[in-house]
Amino acid sequence: MPSDLIIKGKYILPMTFGLPVINNGAIVIDKNHRKGGASSIIAVGQEKELNDKYKAKEVIDVGNSIIMPGLINTHTHAAMTYFRGLADDLPLKEWLEKHIWPVEAKYINSDFVKKVALLSCLEMIKAGITCFNDMSFFEEETAEATVKAGIRIMIGEGILNFPTPSCKIPDKAINKTLKFINKFKDSELVNVAFAPHSIYTCNKDILIKVRRLADKNNVPVHIHVSETKKEVDDCKKEHDKSPVVYLDEIGFLGENVIAAHSVWLDEDDLEVYKRRGVKVSHCPISNMKLASGVMPGEEILDKGIIVGLGTDGAASNNTLDLFSDMRACALLHKVDKLEPIAINAREVVKMATINGARVLGLEDKIGSLEVGKRADIITINLNKPHLLPIYDPYSHIVYCANSGDVDDVIINGQIIMRNRGVKTIDEEKVLKEASNFKIKR
Amino acid sequence: MPSDLIIKGKYILPMTFGLPVINNGAIVIDKNHRKGGASSIIAVGQEKELNDKYKAKEVIDVGNSIIMPGLINTHTHAAMTYFRGLADDLPLKEWLEKHIWPVEAKYINSDFVKKVALLSCLEMIKAGITCFNDMSFFEEETAEATVKAGIRIMIGEGILNFPTPSCKIPDKAINKTLKFINKFKDSELVNVAFAPHSIYTCNKDILIKVRRLADKNNVPVHIHVSETKKEVDDCKKEHDKSPVVYLDEIGFLGENVIAAHSVWLDEDDLEVYKRRGVKVSHCPISNMKLASGVMPGEEILDKGIIVGLGTDGAASNNTLDLFSDMRACALLHKVDKLEPIAINAREVVKMATINGARVLGLEDKIGSLEVGKRADIITINLNKPHLLPIYDPYSHIVYCANSGDVDDVIINGQIIMRNRGVKTIDEEKVLKEASNFKIKR
Repeated sequence: MPSDLIIKGKYILPMTFGLPVINNGAIVIDKNHRKGGASSIIAVGQEKELNDKYKAKEVIDVGNSIIMPGLINTHTHAAMTYFRGLADDLPLKEWLEKHIWPVEAKYINSDFVKKVALLSCLEMIKAGITCFNDMSFFEEETAEATVKAGIRIMIGEGILNFPTPSCKIPDKAINKTLKFINKFKDSELVNVAFAPHSIYTCNKDILIKVRRLADKNNVPVHIHVSETKKEVDDCKKEHDKSPVVYLDEIGFLGENVIAAHSVWLDEDDLEVYKRRGVKVSHCPISNMKLASGVMPGEEILDKGIIVGLGTDGAASNNTLDLFSDMRACALLHKVDKLEPIAINAREVVKMATINGARVLGLEDKIGSLEVGKRADIITINLNKPHLLPIYDPYSHIVYCANSGDVDDVIINGQIIMRNRGVKTIDEEKVLKEASNFKIKR
Repeated sequence: MPSDLIIKGKYILPMTFGLPVINNGAIVIDKNHRKGGASSIIAVGQEKELNDKYKAKEVIDVGNSIIMPGLINTHTHAAMTYFRGLADDLPLKEWLEKHIWPVEAKYINSDFVKKVALLSCLEMIKAGITCFNDMSFFEEETAEATVKAGIRIMIGEGILNFPTPSCKIPDKAINKTLKFINKFKDSELVNVAFAPHSIYTCNKDILIKVRRLADKNNVPVHIHVSETKKEVDDCKKEHDKSPVVYLDEIGFLGENVIAAHSVWLDEDDLEVYKRRGVKVSHCPISNMKLASGVMPGEEILDKGIIVGLGTDGAASNNTLDLFSDMRACALLHKVDKLEPIAINAREVVKMATINGARVLGLEDKIGSLEVGKRADIITINLNKPHLLPIYDPYSHIVYCANSGDVDDVIINGQIIMRNRGVKTIDEEKVLKEASNFKIKR
């Protein structure tokens, strides 16, 4: 049978039920034969079994590598990347008020976002991320950068009670989102969500309006929930209930809610999440660096709540690198519980792939390598001293690999990076622009 | 003035008092004009000031890079690297008894150590480590590998009450150590320590004997202390005191003691450490992965106790990569204390360099870039999407860089790695040997 592309290598992790490992496997891809330019995986299996059946225009043999689904970053702010490392090791209030908010207000505009979004895409592609869920300002510009870069995105124009760099009033951000929904309805790479920032920056009326419009348009809602103890304490003072219970009581929660952080949850909150089918974006490095706290990871998973991983923005991580977050996740919950079996490597790789897709409601398209899904694939080169010997590919992904070990990235059947060379972005130019960016205070 | 080597680049972090950053700096090196083949840094400063004064046989311009002292790994077990990822996410007892001890007993021998030590050296050099403190078996073989690789080491033949792969009785390991002290007394790269494993594997007589011999021979003593709660609980049950107080009361502690882990310390233990001048090797990733606990980092630093960083062995990390441990250290103590200003980036870089040297008692030779010290130097290439823009090199080293960003490694004035190509080790051969290693059970 003819096809466009076959990729083969030592270990394939399809991330399907039971988490099998296919040794000496191959994946057969149709690049864009489906409606709307969507790629399709047409076979996954052992190379020797597929060899006779399929011929491809292009065959890539990645040898001693792991082939797996592209990583899915379920919470980030791509417009912040120029502020990476601008201010660290500071109390949260000082960090926000003296550093982050002033530079956001001064620098974030349409031209700025066009540049910084390309840097963010470049960093994520080189770190094996093939889809990310963004909440920022000027999201149309970010979408433009991602289409150019060939990476998949869910855009969410930040909705806040007060003027943002892009929208003077929250209704403007809501209307922008409605326009995005229409504009990108047939886009293969660009998905749209509503992105009300949080309960402390959006009043009840805005939240209820967003909920209603999200239902009507069948899109997700992306929001920060219970990130800090202060947020929970303030909410209890004002409403006499936790942020989660507050959101539930106003009818905001549902299966399409992506609740970023979700650090300070009590037993009642977990029950609400479970009952409403809320999805969680866990950002371990951000929570550690900003000292927000430790998400009750095992408790959330025990309830069967779906959890993906997020890097958060580069101002609070300081990279857009899910390999670092995978390792931090596996390590943090072990030491927090003094329990070496807490959240194992397989669970973490699920979070970064198929469960990330579920968090975004994109599990029919991405997150695993199986027939009918889009071809979003990365390879990890094992011929490195820190990756040998190998007994278990899942263990190596979580406890050994770093972003620099990703050799190839395929998104929607297109080869976006080959042997670490990114084909869609002028890397030198983007790095030069980033180097030249200076903060004037 | 003539010299052998000048290395110049955008940022130099000498890691001297006050932690200055030299912009557009240069380091001038004499390769081995001193007694015993020791290299010497003869100038550090701004490039334009040194340009007129010094001429070198070789000039390396690393451009947009950070130039800093080589990283110092203060606690590892290089012979374990073939067991990387062999068994994870298991209870400690099962991990040790069913996996680690059986394979140690079956596989660790002289030939095995010769091979695996080279892999460990290769991994560490590629991760910017220029000196490591080892506790394993067949340490003469490990020393041989390090001399071949050109990396600096402190060897410590494991001393235990029961038969080890290399020594049937503890006195044999003690005698081996005495022979090492004599054999390597004029070696530039090989240093020797006594390495009694712990209080639960060495009886009082052995510990006292080691202390006496360490004093007599003026070498450090490298030991695991209070790594797990179980170790402390068992000691209190048996001796009615903590491991630290027990060690102090038998006269074991002193300025030359390198206490690895030191997780479970109370206020009295900290006072003892301070009074005796004990040095600490902090292994955050190992402590997280094995769920040993969180070392009281801020409390130890507040006492003025010197702390270095260690990777521990690759069976419990699973890499020999201090960039990962630096990040884990900075993140862990923040979330543990819910305090975003806990242990900042500068403090962490000190731990990995100059304070690591102090832990090993080698601060007169290594750990900072200043006139008269050996030339142990690494460079970090900043032309990467995850390293731009840059506001503070210390922040980027801790929160952004990974081991793959190290481009060049100089140890004792010799260029060991240039543009990631290691000159002293046949990388392909070492990787092939590691690939071919199989566990038969």
